[in-house]
Amino acid sequence: MTPRAVALGGGHGLQATLTALRRVTTDITAVVTVADDGGSSGRLRRELGLLPPGDLRQALAALADAEHGETLWAELFQHRFGGNGALTGHAVGNLVLAGLFEVLGDPVAALDEARRLLGVSGRVLPMSCEPLDIEAEVTGLSNDGEPRTIRGQVAVASTPGRVRRIELRTRRPDGVPAACPEAVDAVLGADVVFLGPGSWFTSVLPHLLVPGLHDALVRTEARKVVILNLIPQPGETAGFSPERHLHVLFQHAPELRVDVVIADRESVPAPARLRDAAAQLGARALLADVADPNVQGLHDPDALAACVREALGRRVADGRDGEGSREGPWR
Amino acid sequence: MTPRAVALGGGHGLQATLTALRRVTTDITAVVTVADDGGSSGRLRRELGLLPPGDLRQALAALADAEHGETLWAELFQHRFGGNGALTGHAVGNLVLAGLFEVLGDPVAALDEARRLLGVSGRVLPMSCEPLDIEAEVTGLSNDGEPRTIRGQVAVASTPGRVRRIELRTRRPDGVPAACPEAVDAVLGADVVFLGPGSWFTSVLPHLLVPGLHDALVRTEARKVVILNLIPQPGETAGFSPERHLHVLFQHAPELRVDVVIADRESVPAPARLRDAAAQLGARALLADVADPNVQGLHDPDALAACVREALGRRVADGRDGEGSREGPWR
Repeated sequence: MTPRAVALGGGHGLQATLTALRRVTTDITAVVTVADDGGSSGRLRRELGLLPPGDLRQALAALADAEHGETLWAELFQHRFGGNGALTGHAVGNLVLAGLFEVLGDPVAALDEARRLLGVSGRVLPMSCEPLDIEAEVTGLSNDGEPRTIRGQVAVASTPGRVRRIELRTRRPDGVPAACPEAVDAVLGADVVFLGPGSWFTSVLPHLLVPGLHDALVRTEARKVVILNLIPQPGETAGFSPERHLHVLFQHAPELRVDVVIADRESVPAPARLRDAAAQLGARALLADVADPNVQGLHDPDALAACVREALGRRVADGRDGEGSREGPWR
Repeated sequence: MTPRAVALGGGHGLQATLTALRRVTTDITAVVTVADDGGSSGRLRRELGLLPPGDLRQALAALADAEHGETLWAELFQHRFGGNGALTGHAVGNLVLAGLFEVLGDPVAALDEARRLLGVSGRVLPMSCEPLDIEAEVTGLSNDGEPRTIRGQVAVASTPGRVRRIELRTRRPDGVPAACPEAVDAVLGADVVFLGPGSWFTSVLPHLLVPGLHDALVRTEARKVVILNLIPQPGETAGFSPERHLHVLFQHAPELRVDVVIADRESVPAPARLRDAAAQLGARALLADVADPNVQGLHDPDALAACVREALGRRVADGRDGEGSREGPWR
């Protein structure tokens, strides 16, 4: 049985999950944040009013690389123009995706065409078909002790203050971010769903704040796996313990139950506290050596893949048997 | 026998030739000017120091459309970004070609990849692998009667003066524009070579000023066909008679012999004078109704294709028999 896997995230964190996942299954759907407002993506979004394509492009390229090594079109997608003019810093793939968005008028159809071009069997979907904005409540920015509201992914990711919670803003009249229907279907039909690693407030948690996607995550019978970061991210989660990442997740989605939390053994100073935090989500903590020994902050794809296999437990072998997994070799 | 056809030109004129040619043969190589300095191409060229991709993209799209109607990727290539920002006016295909130029470091390899993407069987080549500049001697711009030197394709194409002759400028130390070797080979191996229609000074004549390409045109055993414009181009050739177009061609390449000159019957006020001008190049004039009856200044592809067949004469049926063609139904 080929497990149907869905990975939610954005940026380099999602890339790590996809690269590891591809070693375990061929049936992968990436669901990607669309709140980026920085760099090439931010410029395209502001100029053309389109979905920020950068995280979507990264996910496509990660799947392409994992499926058949670097190909010309994947290399072209990732290639950034140099020079010092109007195009400097734009990734060619961002421009191709932006063009496809405009020509087809439908980001899902555009992403499906792009993956055909790259020869990718996995699917890449936006969490929402409209660009969204992150707004964060941040403390420590003023002497009066009052929290401030910080707007935009770049600003939130680099604030010197302490992010308390985030919300998503949409331009829709009802103020409710709309989930991409194909992403909802993917979550509902999955055998296993992954959340993280990645920029916690700006790439991981946003998925939980799209009501349609949140509800699908709560309702799905898929096993739910959270993969924790190896190191706190300066700005966003400076000083955060591994368990604090889980507390924050719980705070943003109290209804969400999780089955497994994967963490790097070396990155967890207090395993008991992490197990308690995982238990609050209904999850078991799976501690293993998943860090790349050579590059700080990067997951080792093979080690992470082994962990993913362990997290899937008997479910992979026996089909949908929730009990079986509980007897797996959890630490 | 499938005649091996090479079409030299640029812009909409080349598009017309390619669209008509595709009705006659499947073995087509377009050789395209690289002196554009305007619009999206000019910006890319200045910013990134690359070949101006616009005319190359147009040729690829014309072949794609002629081969299998409009496809998504051909449509994407031609799609221009709107808005009013840094990307406004850039055709997506120009950005893809620019990216391929940078990634592959070889415009010919890049164009071959692009035609594979578009599913085009014909080949598109630059006349030179380096960007070139047009410099024109223009009269009528000053009261002293002295000719002025005007630099750049846009400036030359829109000068209110009278263009007398053009030269190509290169940054190469020897000052000699280098022909694309694959373009030279295509001309030498062709059964028939087409020059024009198009902006006479900025899209047609430049090919004759690349010494390697000029020599190949002089040496090739291919039948050489010049297709004249339907109407003079404001700025570049305002007030030019059809025969003056041929005089100017002769002036820029006195050694070049031509076999056939195709002209629209209605566009030639003095057929005898045109025949004389054609004879100066060694050519017979083939007058036919090749104008699109609905759009002024546009060739009708079917009518032009019929003319091309006639110009190829028995050569198509009997192979390389120069005499046969002389007995064709020339008017």
